[in-house]
Amino acid sequence: MERSRMVFSGSGGQGVITAAIILAEAAVLYEGLIAVQSQAYGPEARGGSTRSEVIISDTDIFFPKVNQPNVLICLTQEAYNKYSPSIRPGGLLITDTRYVKTEKKVDALQKELPMHHTVMEEIGKPIVLNICMLGALIGLTDLLKPESIGKVLEARIPPGFLEMNQKALSLGIRLAAEATP
Amino acid sequence: MERSRMVFSGSGGQGVITAAIILAEAAVLYEGLIAVQSQAYGPEARGGSTRSEVIISDTDIFFPKVNQPNVLICLTQEAYNKYSPSIRPGGLLITDTRYVKTEKKVDALQKELPMHHTVMEEIGKPIVLNICMLGALIGLTDLLKPESIGKVLEARIPPGFLEMNQKALSLGIRLAAEATP
Repeated sequence: MERSRMVFSGSGGQGVITAAIILAEAAVLYEGLIAVQSQAYGPEARGGSTRSEVIISDTDIFFPKVNQPNVLICLTQEAYNKYSPSIRPGGLLITDTRYVKTEKKVDALQKELPMHHTVMEEIGKPIVLNICMLGALIGLTDLLKPESIGKVLEARIPPGFLEMNQKALSLGIRLAAEATP
Repeated sequence: MERSRMVFSGSGGQGVITAAIILAEAAVLYEGLIAVQSQAYGPEARGGSTRSEVIISDTDIFFPKVNQPNVLICLTQEAYNKYSPSIRPGGLLITDTRYVKTEKKVDALQKELPMHHTVMEEIGKPIVLNICMLGALIGLTDLLKPESIGKVLEARIPPGFLEMNQKALSLGIRLAAEATP
């Protein structure tokens, strides 16, 4: 497989770190891959920004940092402004239409998805935006099987909240399918 | 400050990743420090082992991996057997008396604390073992102020569970004080 170097960015409370951990666990536990997941907190964290990195590979990962992601997800305008120039040419940029107004083109496939809007319409709880985002990611990339994410959700999420998370995952996959010509 | 390179190790479900994220957030948001927090998942994750790293510093962190921790916490025998030889000479090794039987000496200060036992006696919920562990860590090292951890707990933990987590933090600090001659 091609090594995936991903950055999930947004604001604190949007769950981007949790999403990164779920993705890494799914890759390792259910698809036999290797993953490194990290966050570096500098002064920008004090402004409420969050950036979380995941590398997934089928061979050992010696350099655990992501400088040029081939998948970048931005859930705030600030994150988009800051990180979109770093995307690897030919990569994939996913933004949320509610939170990000894209400006100049980058040399990447750009997908602007109404993730927040759809989660609010169909579930009504903004807290599962991060899981919808994972659905969109795997829908657009075929990086992992949906069932692998589903199994991690089953193991991590308390029963009363599981259905909502599974629905958010499905919504993300649907948004990805609708955005693919 | 001396740079702290820490490894928290145990089994999946003991909350060592969450503890690492809480510690990193507390350092950055409330003490003006810089932190990198990561987990590398290899084949051992499929056996249920978890290893989470945190580096906390007052200057930029260029190398985000921890090879030789100066603080190592082991919550399972397997983690102890695997990681205790890697501790930096003069470092601090914290183990839980319920889960780990220490064997040969390492060139480090060894603290065997009844964290699980005390949490079960005084709170009755094993789920807050990780927060008790953070209390013991900051009690033994003076790395961060207890209030900084407390503020992160307030922001992250749902109200109904907050008091239990604050109590676990205090228990850990008490165990550290009792273990200090």
